[in-house]
Amino acid sequence: MSELQIHDLIPYLEGFITDKRKARLQQVLSQRSGHMRIVLENVYQAHNTSAVLRSCDCFGVQHVHFIENNNALKISEDVALGSSNWLSIHRHKHAENNTLEALTSLKKEGYKIVATSPHKNDFTLNELPVEHKFALVFGTELEGISEEVVKSADAFVRIPMYGFTESFNISVSAAICMYELSRRIRETVPNYHLSETEKTRVYFEWLKNTVQSSEALIEDFLSKQK
Amino acid sequence: MSELQIHDLIPYLEGFITDKRKARLQQVLSQRSGHMRIVLENVYQAHNTSAVLRSCDCFGVQHVHFIENNNALKISEDVALGSSNWLSIHRHKHAENNTLEALTSLKKEGYKIVATSPHKNDFTLNELPVEHKFALVFGTELEGISEEVVKSADAFVRIPMYGFTESFNISVSAAICMYELSRRIRETVPNYHLSETEKTRVYFEWLKNTVQSSEALIEDFLSKQK
Repeated sequence: MSELQIHDLIPYLEGFITDKRKARLQQVLSQRSGHMRIVLENVYQAHNTSAVLRSCDCFGVQHVHFIENNNALKISEDVALGSSNWLSIHRHKHAENNTLEALTSLKKEGYKIVATSPHKNDFTLNELPVEHKFALVFGTELEGISEEVVKSADAFVRIPMYGFTESFNISVSAAICMYELSRRIRETVPNYHLSETEKTRVYFEWLKNTVQSSEALIEDFLSKQK
Repeated sequence: MSELQIHDLIPYLEGFITDKRKARLQQVLSQRSGHMRIVLENVYQAHNTSAVLRSCDCFGVQHVHFIENNNALKISEDVALGSSNWLSIHRHKHAENNTLEALTSLKKEGYKIVATSPHKNDFTLNELPVEHKFALVFGTELEGISEEVVKSADAFVRIPMYGFTESFNISVSAAICMYELSRRIRETVPNYHLSETEKTRVYFEWLKNTVQSSEALIEDFLSKQK
């Protein structure tokens, strides 16, 4: 769909929702950010994936990438609670090397790659610099990040731990990182919000999710414009 | 077992572990705290309970309370990774009102009751005062904390959220709270550590978990003392 069509369709679709709903969408949109993206590499448990999606929505992290090597993306709706409808989900599954493809495309878009690992000592979570936009990569439940991620990473970050268990559950780890880093991004990065262009696209997607039978309405609207 | 017997048994059991292992136990013990306790009210999914236990161990939170109204404590070992062996687990399940019994006993021990709820506006997580010792209460997956907890609470705390989903998964919520609050306790509360008496008890429990056939060894040791 062209920018121009989206521009026309937005007020049309807005006609089908209440002012209160519209205000809610706008309010959440104003808190969305693309400054930090989340990347899950080959996570296989649906309740983990789903809990991460829910946390992304809660912390305003708009973009989530799934690298699907052996494990296809699965979502448990009783954990995710519809959060996937409000996120931009990027699936990397058709390349020869999905991890490399995902990280290369993120780097092209100007993201630094920050890998999470309890075994690397670059930065603890509260020390990681956040001024440059970055993608935070989490590895699979048992083995953590792959060698490919280790090679591509610009930095490593770890959550300080004080116990016998030397790692967190993946959904827990992702949530702690998002809590700390998104808080610091909100406090210290002036332009953490989505760009106006991106806001428009995301808002259009949200309207499509919100308005009943939106696909049919859009088709009808566009056919009348011809 | 008496304090005196424990005093004698500790060096005896230490004889069965390496110096390296002993140093590791002591190191983790030195980071343990009873300043903040975690209370789970009627949580029913084993993977949530287990992830919370793992986070408690990681953040050095020694005491966990389970209020078992309809849902008996269940632990998934593939998520908990043995963390329950290193924690002091308190089960509240035999009273007429388990919630009231648990919270009353915590208050008697000098703990403030801090209830987590996304709908109460007392404190956001980063504002909650931490100088006085407190028990942080999390409710069941769907309904949150009970009315009993609401009535007994000295304060309410919520994690700031910016999305459509208005709550976190329970294991995620507990981990974020423990991350933020234990960090601030470590930074600002001089005596957050376990007392010397409690350290001795916990260390003895850990030795029992660590040494193979410790029960038989202890029995043998005590019988020779008579």
